[in-house]
Amino acid sequence: MIRFESDYTEGAHVRILQRLLETNEEQTSGYGTDEHCERAREYIRTACRAPHADVHFLVGGTQTNTTVIASILRPHQGVIAAVTGHIAGHETGAIEAAGHKVLTVPSEDGKITAAQVKEVYEAHWNDPTHEHVVQPGMVYISQSTENGTIYSKAELEALHQASRECGLPLFIDGARLGYALAAADSDVTLADLAGLCDVFYIGGTKVGAMMGEAVVIVNEALGRDFRYHIKQRGGMLAKGRMLGIQFETLFEDGLYLEISKHAVEMADRIQRAIAELGYSFKYASTTNQQFPILPDKLLEELRLNYTFSTWEKTADEHYTVVRFCTSWATKAEHVTGLINEIKRLHAQL
Amino acid sequence: MIRFESDYTEGAHVRILQRLLETNEEQTSGYGTDEHCERAREYIRTACRAPHADVHFLVGGTQTNTTVIASILRPHQGVIAAVTGHIAGHETGAIEAAGHKVLTVPSEDGKITAAQVKEVYEAHWNDPTHEHVVQPGMVYISQSTENGTIYSKAELEALHQASRECGLPLFIDGARLGYALAAADSDVTLADLAGLCDVFYIGGTKVGAMMGEAVVIVNEALGRDFRYHIKQRGGMLAKGRMLGIQFETLFEDGLYLEISKHAVEMADRIQRAIAELGYSFKYASTTNQQFPILPDKLLEELRLNYTFSTWEKTADEHYTVVRFCTSWATKAEHVTGLINEIKRLHAQL
Amino acid sequence: MIRFESDYTEGAHVRILQRLLETNEEQTSGYGTDEHCERAREYIRTACRAPHADVHFLVGGTQTNTTVIASILRPHQGVIAAVTGHIAGHETGAIEAAGHKVLTVPSEDGKITAAQVKEVYEAHWNDPTHEHVVQPGMVYISQSTENGTIYSKAELEALHQASRECGLPLFIDGARLGYALAAADSDVTLADLAGLCDVFYIGGTKVGAMMGEAVVIVNEALGRDFRYHIKQRGGMLAKGRMLGIQFETLFEDGLYLEISKHAVEMADRIQRAIAELGYSFKYASTTNQQFPILPDKLLEELRLNYTFSTWEKTADEHYTVVRFCTSWATKAEHVTGLINEIKRLHAQL
Amino acid sequence: MIRFESDYTEGAHVRILQRLLETNEEQTSGYGTDEHCERAREYIRTACRAPHADVHFLVGGTQTNTTVIASILRPHQGVIAAVTGHIAGHETGAIEAAGHKVLTVPSEDGKITAAQVKEVYEAHWNDPTHEHVVQPGMVYISQSTENGTIYSKAELEALHQASRECGLPLFIDGARLGYALAAADSDVTLADLAGLCDVFYIGGTKVGAMMGEAVVIVNEALGRDFRYHIKQRGGMLAKGRMLGIQFETLFEDGLYLEISKHAVEMADRIQRAIAELGYSFKYASTTNQQFPILPDKLLEELRLNYTFSTWEKTADEHYTVVRFCTSWATKAEHVTGLINEIKRLHAQL
Repeated sequence: MIRFESDYTEGAHVRILQRLLETNEEQTSGYGTDEHCERAREYIRTACRAPHADVHFLVGGTQTNTTVIASILRPHQGVIAAVTGHIAGHETGAIEAAGHKVLTVPSEDGKITAAQVKEVYEAHWNDPTHEHVVQPGMVYISQSTENGTIYSKAELEALHQASRECGLPLFIDGARLGYALAAADSDVTLADLAGLCDVFYIGGTKVGAMMGEAVVIVNEALGRDFRYHIKQRGGMLAKGRMLGIQFETLFEDGLYLEISKHAVEMADRIQRAIAELGYSFKYASTTNQQFPILPDKLLEELRLNYTFSTWEKTADEHYTVVRFCTSWATKAEHVTGLINEIKRLHAQL
Repeated sequence: MIRFESDYTEGAHVRILQRLLETNEEQTSGYGTDEHCERAREYIRTACRAPHADVHFLVGGTQTNTTVIASILRPHQGVIAAVTGHIAGHETGAIEAAGHKVLTVPSEDGKITAAQVKEVYEAHWNDPTHEHVVQPGMVYISQSTENGTIYSKAELEALHQASRECGLPLFIDGARLGYALAAADSDVTLADLAGLCDVFYIGGTKVGAMMGEAVVIVNEALGRDFRYHIKQRGGMLAKGRMLGIQFETLFEDGLYLEISKHAVEMADRIQRAIAELGYSFKYASTTNQQFPILPDKLLEELRLNYTFSTWEKTADEHYTVVRFCTSWATKAEHVTGLINEIKRLHAQL
Repeated sequence: MIRFESDYTEGAHVRILQRLLETNEEQTSGYGTDEHCERAREYIRTACRAPHADVHFLVGGTQTNTTVIASILRPHQGVIAAVTGHIAGHETGAIEAAGHKVLTVPSEDGKITAAQVKEVYEAHWNDPTHEHVVQPGMVYISQSTENGTIYSKAELEALHQASRECGLPLFIDGARLGYALAAADSDVTLADLAGLCDVFYIGGTKVGAMMGEAVVIVNEALGRDFRYHIKQRGGMLAKGRMLGIQFETLFEDGLYLEISKHAVEMADRIQRAIAELGYSFKYASTTNQQFPILPDKLLEELRLNYTFSTWEKTADEHYTVVRFCTSWATKAEHVTGLINEIKRLHAQL
Repeated sequence: MIRFESDYTEGAHVRILQRLLETNEEQTSGYGTDEHCERAREYIRTACRAPHADVHFLVGGTQTNTTVIASILRPHQGVIAAVTGHIAGHETGAIEAAGHKVLTVPSEDGKITAAQVKEVYEAHWNDPTHEHVVQPGMVYISQSTENGTIYSKAELEALHQASRECGLPLFIDGARLGYALAAADSDVTLADLAGLCDVFYIGGTKVGAMMGEAVVIVNEALGRDFRYHIKQRGGMLAKGRMLGIQFETLFEDGLYLEISKHAVEMADRIQRAIAELGYSFKYASTTNQQFPILPDKLLEELRLNYTFSTWEKTADEHYTVVRFCTSWATKAEHVTGLINEIKRLHAQL
């Protein structure tokens, strides 16, 4: 069985494992105060052109989202997010467990707009009984989104400006940030991104690491006491170096972007091959997740040798939206095999 | 600088890293549903002689304590713990952030007694205004404790029985469980422990793993929906196999206990050497943490080449309680060096 | 200015105030353990034909909803509610502050259906990654709803059965229960209601009392430790008798239903008068809230002497949905005045 | 049975009930925006000589404490309080349910000192691992305390200064503030108090009202968005005037202080009579709560006709500390009766 069901089916980039072995007997202080973490922070600040940013290493996405959001909001505030946002539906109510409502706005493709942010803000403050309603307190977006789409620089600039005008910190979930940066049509660099939000994170789990997310706090006011929040939410590893070493490896010489590009190229091959067969796609994704609409008959056969996600049924009862994920670890021969199999099954229809 | 400040100064047991390398290209399903996790669960069930236990892998101690406790208590209930318990003072209020009070009882050596549990329970239910007070809802102990001490089998049996009689689940924090099992004076096996509580965890972070704690839910009723709680509290790794592979390695052939014994032997050497010099100890620890009371003058010199923790000042202003930790990774030559240095400095006093 | 903006513009039924005066010097025990509370409980149990029900007196609606819901759900569970439900949008995130997500379902008229409950339940349990999603843990409805509509007995029976089948307790918010019971087209008695849910409350604040809501716990399992929850959530009055005396007065001889009928008659007069002028209504309300769609020009003039709520703009930019509320305290001459004024302004258009 | 068990055994001051009757048919806007609330706010600001203070009316003590504390603290912060403080032990974990730890300090008489505040603060910030510990975020004291004692002006000034220096808002729980102001040895006026803290509340429930606490926010920064917090925590009455009218009555012409004085005089008579018999007292209370140490044999007989609270056993097994409470409503003849009965029983010993 060849797996395209997610971007976390393999271990870690081999250079990370080698580095772990090389450094294994070093004795270091705990909780992220070691030199590996410090070097990783420096590499990341440089890559972001954000020399004063606070950088912290957490373990996973749900934890990172909860920690960042809970550290920013006051009890009566909520976070604006796309209805499809990860925090809205796929984290078992972690944000609510921390006491906050997710204020969802509609989205067809995973993205939200500056106009939507302003609309929520104005609707709240124009409501004469606004004290009876959760106050919008920050904005959450993902780059790339849960649907594989990406924000352009102009879109991010508009969101940044709207958030500023409303006094709402803008937080970017970058669980798949590498794949967004590597997209052929992306005009957003890591430094651009850092300049257009208050806090974001660079996803490691889905981009080469065993686990780990690097939170970059650009807005200095939000950094105060952040290590308390990490500890309280369970994100402070005793052996913090385990995260530091991974990000050190990913960022010391550009590995993060390099392996992200590979994933996107693999996804692009799948996308083009399926499009050439005449099939359409649910979302216009240019990143590592592709959402083709394929005949159920073909999918049934394809499932015998390949895993992928069932996304949703279409109006046409014989078709289904599915998701293929590539990653830094995806092998070219597996992609070739997948494409050939799809072609073969298509020909048999 | 040679470090004895904690039991998490090195990486992971080398066999774990090798196993990660060997399995790195395997494709597996996510979130702990892979075969490595499944095998690790089986090994642990066997080691615990608890064939029906639920076994789950979480990342760190604070997270594990919070997840287990929040999954058990109702909103008006609290958890009974020693005032020195890790949840009482060293987790940045994680239990309170989950909505619950830690009901502390006094302890001189990190342990609590069956009598104390009964006393809290009876004091609560005999209070005519008990509805105005947090209801005791479970019991938390650590094996070994934060002071290096261990519960005997008789003590655990008494606690188990008292908890049962009060209808309070008993939860054992085993962050340093290996070192408790390996203590020379321990009469408690892993299977004993599993039979004498409702839920416990086997610490990996401090005993050979990079990170990871294996929660063993013996009381079937407590296992219901536990995976939701793990996910909500941020403990469900996308690449769950990273934890599974580590526990698979530690439990497939007894490595966990073997390396724990090494740590205890190293600590024992330190303990005997210091005792021979005529110094006394704050706690009667037989595990990997030793708390000697040493002259400040000696400590000042010792700090030039060795790290260790300052625990507390004594009544005599010239002496301080310090903590030396050994671990699975402690090198015999470092222990020899430490002992010789202490002897040398003692001779100079 | 004559007020029709809400059903809480006056004080309390005069018999309640007189009873407070008569009993003022009595010395009683606190926290709802006095004889007035006990008698009120008995009257309510009798009225509900629920001799074994637990009855508790809380102060207000948000507090009651939060206390009941937080007492039932486990941390990973949420409450199913109409998107228009009071808990979903008008309680400043009180449910989320207690840690729980409100799982909203669409509703045009404030009601939800048995089919919707089943759909949410099945969608959850059919999702292979359901552990990543908040688990439905109970159902919340309002009788009457925020839109003035009421559930028929058949609808409640279907909801009750669906909830049972899904293992979800059914909770009915009765902030305006009196007005639902008094509706001309209602076929649901208080006893019917008590038999068709697990817990509900009888609203006092909007129906004759100064403040106060009587929670009736029919499902015995849900009553356990409920007084702790009341205390923790701030709902346990030291002078609990202040609530007991009010409900004693409202329920000793049918006052609650009698004054509810008055309010509904007043609303009915307004409804018929406006309908006769040819205007339509946003919701088919037969209770004390009426939502006519009126020309902005008329409303502008009407506002000079009357208060009412602006509900929403219609597609036709010259019309607005507004809300007129009557209550137990509404004076017939004020209703006559309002109707005459609307007729006069209509004639001038 | 004559009750001295608490200061909430009667209804409300008769002038309050009369005022409720007089104003009953007035139509007002809801949620505390009416003219009665506005007038009450003005009276209170004047009484406090705090013309810019925010004044809000909440329903009960637990709710008020929770709302104020939760509105001030960030998630990783806790509140410093005496171990005997109401929030520490008598509110069913309401503070913890809002996510915060109560950082208790020892107290023999219910009071804490400026030195203790500084000590907690410094211990925290001197701890190199302070991020693993709950950060002190504010200070909570009660005036009068749970033990009937009061802070002198000098003590409050020292606490105020210490709190300022540590950057910790000082919150005074005034559930029994009237009785503190009325104490013969008090040198603290309401205006003094308002000038020596950041936020406090004036208790109504125990001092003449049916229910209700008036929160006075002196530190402007703490007032931001406070109405959201009131609503979320269930403290915003739809008929907010019910609280406004009560405080209007209590503060328009000094009734609050006048009835407080009566209570203290009654307590003083009890205190003197018992002292004259040669008995001692657990606490040096000069307010409405008295804690004599009396022989069990006397108490047994006294209980036949009088209620009072059993506080704690003494070392001498034949004696018990009990509590007698007086209030604004205590009748002089009841006090005379109590004193005579105690004398009679004492003579029989």
